[in-house]
Amino acid sequence: MQMSIDFHLNCDLETAIETVTAALKAEGFGVLSRIDVHSTFKEKLDEDFREYVMLGACSPKLAWKAFNHEPRVGLMLPCNVTVEAAEGGGMDVKMVHPDMLLGMGGFSEDPVFRELRDHATPVFERIAASLNQ
Amino acid sequence: MQMSIDFHLNCDLETAIETVTAALKAEGFGVLSRIDVHSTFKEKLDEDFREYVMLGACSPKLAWKAFNHEPRVGLMLPCNVTVEAAEGGGMDVKMVHPDMLLGMGGFSEDPVFRELRDHATPVFERIAASLNQ
Repeated sequence: MQMSIDFHLNCDLETAIETVTAALKAEGFGVLSRIDVHSTFKEKLDEDFREYVMLGACSPKLAWKAFNHEPRVGLMLPCNVTVEAAEGGGMDVKMVHPDMLLGMGGFSEDPVFRELRDHATPVFERIAASLNQ
Repeated sequence: MQMSIDFHLNCDLETAIETVTAALKAEGFGVLSRIDVHSTFKEKLDEDFREYVMLGACSPKLAWKAFNHEPRVGLMLPCNVTVEAAEGGGMDVKMVHPDMLLGMGGFSEDPVFRELRDHATPVFERIAASLNQ
């Protein structure tokens, strides 16, 4: 199973986050959470890790359908988008594949979740195709 | 597959979040993110939903092993803990079962992730058993 929909940006961390956030917003997805993994490792363990940020993206409209259909969906959401320093420079961006979220909850055959997956997947693919550098 | 490790608290939302956060902290897990689902629905869609908060919990020590072993683990973490108003009063708390996170990424047979799972699962079970009312 494909874990994520990936692309690359030729910019620094904060510019990448701004770019991804704007692209998600244009498709109806808000960024509801941000965890700076590298900062957390430095602060909690005094360990160095490459720049790595986890964003939590969610479409209120899709989430409304999902939460009303199956409240346990809160165990799987939001859709994680990771932004991390690439070995050759720039930033690698990975958006969790909706198939993986469905599989996680055992909802692969659920018609409501399949419909939401069918809506979200091309959105992520479109963002990746339009932003990839 | 068991999706979550659940318990109930006889208190309001904020007290429940404080209680769960303190119990996680005592076991080495920090709460790195909080999404107020009901507030987001009200703000974005003007829709009413019962009180429902998603917390993102993570142990820096376990995460350090996980990120160094397989950086794509950022697509699955943090461990979601949901706190929602229960029908009969009080709050229902659900902690995502580590087995579900492993299955999500196709890492069920990975020895490193299995070790982390074997560490985290009894922690969550201990918290649920000690706090359940």
